[in-house]
Amino acid sequence: MTSAASRFADLYAAVGQHYARQVQFLDGGKFEEYAATFTEDGEFQHTPGVTPARTPAGIVAELHAFHERFADDPVQRRHWFNMIDLSPREDGDFDAVFYALVLTVRPGVKEPQVGPSCLVRDVLEITDGSVRNRSRRVEHDQHVQHLQHASR
Amino acid sequence: MTSAASRFADLYAAVGQHYARQVQFLDGGKFEEYAATFTEDGEFQHTPGVTPARTPAGIVAELHAFHERFADDPVQRRHWFNMIDLSPREDGDFDAVFYALVLTVRPGVKEPQVGPSCLVRDVLEITDGSVRNRSRRVEHDQHVQHLQHASR
Amino acid sequence: MTSAASRFADLYAAVGQHYARQVQFLDGGKFEEYAATFTEDGEFQHTPGVTPARTPAGIVAELHAFHERFADDPVQRRHWFNMIDLSPREDGDFDAVFYALVLTVRPGVKEPQVGPSCLVRDVLEITDGSVRNRSRRVEHDQHVQHLQHASR
Repeated sequence: MTSAASRFADLYAAVGQHYARQVQFLDGGKFEEYAATFTEDGEFQHTPGVTPARTPAGIVAELHAFHERFADDPVQRRHWFNMIDLSPREDGDFDAVFYALVLTVRPGVKEPQVGPSCLVRDVLEITDGSVRNRSRRVEHDQHVQHLQHASR
Repeated sequence: MTSAASRFADLYAAVGQHYARQVQFLDGGKFEEYAATFTEDGEFQHTPGVTPARTPAGIVAELHAFHERFADDPVQRRHWFNMIDLSPREDGDFDAVFYALVLTVRPGVKEPQVGPSCLVRDVLEITDGSVRNRSRRVEHDQHVQHLQHASR
Repeated sequence: MTSAASRFADLYAAVGQHYARQVQFLDGGKFEEYAATFTEDGEFQHTPGVTPARTPAGIVAELHAFHERFADDPVQRRHWFNMIDLSPREDGDFDAVFYALVLTVRPGVKEPQVGPSCLVRDVLEITDGSVRNRSRRVEHDQHVQHLQHASR
């Protein structure tokens, strides 16, 4: 293999680790730590059409507001990311396009609620093995007007 | 770590990226692009007992035929691959054996239909970080006459 | 990227491959092979509060006892691991904290039973690309007294 292949492996592993820590922060309610995985001018749009949250402080505020809805309904959410397509951008950053699935577990209930299923589009800054999100945009599969038979 | 370990990391990352792009082509209805991830004499058998589709052109035709069933029922399907066991073959190619799960999302419905769960057996050609499928055989877990308690 | 990044990529790929083989052993009923992925003094605790199984022989015995429950109910189980957070420990081993989801497929039923969703805490011994579990502790999300809104 070439050194280009080794470099890709370095990037791919760093991105995998980045996402693992990121979702464990999010699902553990560690919103400041989650927000710190974004750049200082980072943007996070969890629902299309909604104005993105900006900066780590703005992302923390958005997450606290979002989770107010669970205040009387304790759940353990788990974000699963998979099928990560990582490619370089012309500006030196990276595009990562991947699938996400949210599982919601209620106390005493073995079978989690499954969904939504999403497509996530991240722009990542990767420097010396350190990865941060410049932006994240989430599309919910159930909202996309998708006609698979007509897609070509 | 040895250079053998580095080489394995290169291969494993390249295979992860290959599958990410492959399923995003498939789930996006880009059947020609999906078929191009197979070798010129590639074989794709999505159901045991069915004659495999052969060559990229044959795979495209098979996929169009398969998706006709969704013509009046628009859905967003998502193929999740995971737990990839990658090992070298004596002929210089690689075996990849992994789990697959299909999620089917209908417009306006947050909770996807889950299943089938499958075991996939690929033979991969890997050259300079470029990965293509020589073959793919899919076993559906609900069809396998499996008796877990008697498996040894 | 630095050589530290390359070393991390080597470790991350080796761990991914370790887990792929491990779950395929487990789900294929190859309990001796599964147990051999643990060190000689390895500990496996699949349910909190239960005394961990110790040594490969003890793990095999535990797995046979656990699977007796399926003796009259043949199923294909699939363990999915994801979002692996891998970090070095001071003692030279590695912590791996990740999500696990169990799918249970019954003959003729396309849609698997989903759950439980778990958080798994492994300690891994990694030497020259060879990975073994020193210990595994599994927490079931439906049993954790988690109050997400109060987590900070």
